[in-house]
Amino acid sequence: MNVEIVSVGSEIVSGRIADTNAAYLASRLGDLGFRVNRHSAADDRYAELAALLREVAARADLAVVTGGLGPTRDDLTREVVAELVGAQLVEDALARENIVAIFAARGGTPSESNYKQALAPRGSRVIQNPTGTACGMDLRIGRCRIFCLPGVPSEMKVMFERDVVPAVRSLSGQVRRVRSLHTFGMAESVIGERLHDMMAEEANPELATQASEGVITLRLTANAPAPDIADRLIETAEREVRRRIGNVIFGTDGCTLPMAVARLLEMRSMKLAIAESCTGGEIAARLTDVPGISRFLIEGIVAYANDAKIRRLGVPAELIEREGAVSRPVAEAMALGMRQTSGADVALSVTGIAGPGGGTPQKPVGLVFFALADAQGVRSEEANIRGEREIIRNRATKRALNMLRLYLEESKDGNG
Amino acid sequence: MNVEIVSVGSEIVSGRIADTNAAYLASRLGDLGFRVNRHSAADDRYAELAALLREVAARADLAVVTGGLGPTRDDLTREVVAELVGAQLVEDALARENIVAIFAARGGTPSESNYKQALAPRGSRVIQNPTGTACGMDLRIGRCRIFCLPGVPSEMKVMFERDVVPAVRSLSGQVRRVRSLHTFGMAESVIGERLHDMMAEEANPELATQASEGVITLRLTANAPAPDIADRLIETAEREVRRRIGNVIFGTDGCTLPMAVARLLEMRSMKLAIAESCTGGEIAARLTDVPGISRFLIEGIVAYANDAKIRRLGVPAELIEREGAVSRPVAEAMALGMRQTSGADVALSVTGIAGPGGGTPQKPVGLVFFALADAQGVRSEEANIRGEREIIRNRATKRALNMLRLYLEESKDGNG
Repeated sequence: MNVEIVSVGSEIVSGRIADTNAAYLASRLGDLGFRVNRHSAADDRYAELAALLREVAARADLAVVTGGLGPTRDDLTREVVAELVGAQLVEDALARENIVAIFAARGGTPSESNYKQALAPRGSRVIQNPTGTACGMDLRIGRCRIFCLPGVPSEMKVMFERDVVPAVRSLSGQVRRVRSLHTFGMAESVIGERLHDMMAEEANPELATQASEGVITLRLTANAPAPDIADRLIETAEREVRRRIGNVIFGTDGCTLPMAVARLLEMRSMKLAIAESCTGGEIAARLTDVPGISRFLIEGIVAYANDAKIRRLGVPAELIEREGAVSRPVAEAMALGMRQTSGADVALSVTGIAGPGGGTPQKPVGLVFFALADAQGVRSEEANIRGEREIIRNRATKRALNMLRLYLEESKDGNG
Repeated sequence: MNVEIVSVGSEIVSGRIADTNAAYLASRLGDLGFRVNRHSAADDRYAELAALLREVAARADLAVVTGGLGPTRDDLTREVVAELVGAQLVEDALARENIVAIFAARGGTPSESNYKQALAPRGSRVIQNPTGTACGMDLRIGRCRIFCLPGVPSEMKVMFERDVVPAVRSLSGQVRRVRSLHTFGMAESVIGERLHDMMAEEANPELATQASEGVITLRLTANAPAPDIADRLIETAEREVRRRIGNVIFGTDGCTLPMAVARLLEMRSMKLAIAESCTGGEIAARLTDVPGISRFLIEGIVAYANDAKIRRLGVPAELIEREGAVSRPVAEAMALGMRQTSGADVALSVTGIAGPGGGTPQKPVGLVFFALADAQGVRSEEANIRGEREIIRNRATKRALNMLRLYLEESKDGNG
């Protein structure tokens, strides 16, 4: 079955934005067992668009078209498909009501041009738009089934999921299930070696790795004729992956390191405080992305100047003098001081050189120390992170959160 | 002149990644005065790819193809273009040397399959790859000039800028200049009204607005037969824009609010301290994205718990009791306390309700107070931000930075 995706609009063709609609649709059509063969994007000019849609209709069995359904003169998808289908545009009563209702909710009334968004070629099926004014269309040009959706991503997604997915689900005869396992702290090459046999091209589930800002995600993709078979394939493979690479997996299917830490703090009902130097508030900011974190996070200090480390955290001035602000003893003193002055159960600290300046041969840019203090004492780690300032700060943040995660996991069965 | 962009690879067609290469190329070709008519993406399967490239070559005068130049069996762009050109693939000596050198730098030797990346159809011009092993190609299929570049974005960009740009620059007969003016604090609709006449479709420079996370960017695009004419068009228009919307413009061409603040702190040689509640460290984290900020930022406190506000900042417990932690008096007390306990010249504070929980009818989610304290006293602002937790935190961060920016700008000519 030949499946294609078409995007209409000058913002795509001129490069003002990347075509995330096409990526979304391709990925979701893949989930439904379809293999997409081609993406195309064209400007909203009549002749160009008509030529493209004519070609696609001649080649494909199924196509999803986004964009060109707006109210203005340069939105031409309706006119072009009407010509290709050979039918007149007629107004859909429900779509018209929807436009009136959406304007009323915003406290306005539609102008005449807005009603253009309720038009569809006679004989096509109208796809209602629950969140916007542009209705979609489900029609055939020759043997090709074509779904036309608006280009606004939020509207497109709702209409695709609600309407197109049920309409095409049965056509592929396959389902796809995807499971993502997110890891931190093991090199992609080491993961590749440990899981080598599972990454064979013909394996089902397929296993692929993807690296993004220090997090390596393992993506298991199972194809099967029925959902329960696909689910079972995924479960078996996931169990085997976990057996082999164990605790570097911190979460699944979109879970982030801050989410994993927040969940563990909740499980242990422990209170946290954070003292940051080179990460500059990034650790606190990422943790506070997680709703409800206020129950577990007492406070954070961005102790950028040495004076702040001394005054706020009680780090001895002579320790900074002797060891330098970026040193293991200072990291440990920061964590201990943070815990003591905040009343937290556990305190995390980071001090390092993010660059671009400030490095020396003994203490190069990218040198970072981490420490964790609890009632039992303090532990610390050292890292040498290569890269630009942004990468160093990002990796230091993740490494600190992962250190905390491993600590919380290991003490989960202890006094928690 | 008909210009097209082609992307080759399953990661694009399957939707695993969005096609940012196409967006980059379209945008850069636009800068050079070309109008791109179509993007296409195909899987790396021989027949599919050959069909696509044959169509493109028949339609276009100029095409840039990315991807399919890797060392493995499913990288087919070289083979396909060789067939379409009707020439044999031959090895380029320089490209082969480059492969050996790149492996040597990484401490390895190439295997036989790697040398495939030094092949190009006889008679084509080889584009050397300074940062990777895949050479590119510059050739003609019929009347269409085609540049083939690797799909790895960093390699593609270097080769495009170094080699393709000089080769095609003279073909368009036009240059484009773009100037971006970044604003915060004025609604897009108000900007649209003030600049209405400048936004006419036929205007040169074109003026378009783009909203991204609270920042409205005005994009001036001038097309002209020569660079100095384009530059002059931009300058005149920019002056007029600045006259009409004045100080909501905080920077140009990629300048962020944190960068603008850092520059002003440097100009005034003032030291800053930050007390954050609902923004959770985000303000400090974004400011410390800017290299060299350590000279101006003493410290930040993420005073999430009330106890931290009292203990660290000296906010009176009875004030929090009486007014609530999210209130104008507490924001002011936080800023004053932060300034006093840190020794900074100016202290910024934020307290608010980021949600999703914690709102009341009197103090709904999205209510945020900001305060700034300096030697002269304290000033404060209130905002009601609508949206999800992420949006509230993001807008509160930007609004706080903008409040600081306006303060620093207005006192620039005073005691600075």
